[in-house]
Amino acid sequence: MDEFMKIAIEEARIGLAEGGIPIGSVLVKDGRVVSRGHNKRVQEDNPILHGEMDCLNNAGRIGSYRDTVIYSTLMPCFMCAGTIVQFKIPKVIVGESKTFNGAREFMESHGVEVIDLALPECIKMMEDFINEKPQLWNEDIMEL
Amino acid sequence: MDEFMKIAIEEARIGLAEGGIPIGSVLVKDGRVVSRGHNKRVQEDNPILHGEMDCLNNAGRIGSYRDTVIYSTLMPCFMCAGTIVQFKIPKVIVGESKTFNGAREFMESHGVEVIDLALPECIKMMEDFINEKPQLWNEDIMEL
Repeated sequence: MDEFMKIAIEEARIGLAEGGIPIGSVLVKDGRVVSRGHNKRVQEDNPILHGEMDCLNNAGRIGSYRDTVIYSTLMPCFMCAGTIVQFKIPKVIVGESKTFNGAREFMESHGVEVIDLALPECIKMMEDFINEKPQLWNEDIMEL
Repeated sequence: MDEFMKIAIEEARIGLAEGGIPIGSVLVKDGRVVSRGHNKRVQEDNPILHGEMDCLNNAGRIGSYRDTVIYSTLMPCFMCAGTIVQFKIPKVIVGESKTFNGAREFMESHGVEVIDLALPECIKMMEDFINEKPQLWNEDIMEL
């Protein structure tokens, strides 16, 4: 498997072990990891720290994102997709979109390349989590 | 002037005094302030903490946003607009959109009501800032 997606999955599993929502993300520039992160809604009582946002938060101010790729174990929601569009990140590689459709079309309509690896490992991780904590999941995607 | 917009402007001025980008935001629920915040890119070396994001960050986990209104001294960018759409915040009141177009149409296409007060005070604050620190402003809106 893609080495960067492996790290994103590792981040998701760290989040799960912390009692959080298992979604991880990695920012890559010139073939190297700039930052990694995972959803911290539960851990930091913070609704904006989705995996992708935590990852971009951890990167700090890096200037242009035009030669970066962002990985996420799950298709980005509108918050994360809006951030990707605003930051002009040209490419997104996701683990899956079966458990959450996200905002793929919105990103593509703004010229972002979106690759969905449809990984069984990512799908199972989210399915198990959603089955176990449906209320927390609905809170995270604001289905309230 | 709207009392909540006054607080958003106060937040923007706090940010400016800290050496940051003068954009402030307030989240209101049932006619009361839930949280307030301002852009902290400079102060916290953090690219995701636009005024609206800092405000939502400061609110913590409040459950549904369906009966909230978010105020911002400036029209939200795609990151903040995507967050507003994802969080299902139904109404946005902004100080101005003259110095930055933002993502008004995107929000409206998702059913968000957007009111632009076009306040000279907000316009002048941003014009002065952009004239003084154009590079920092371009970094914040990712015109790099």
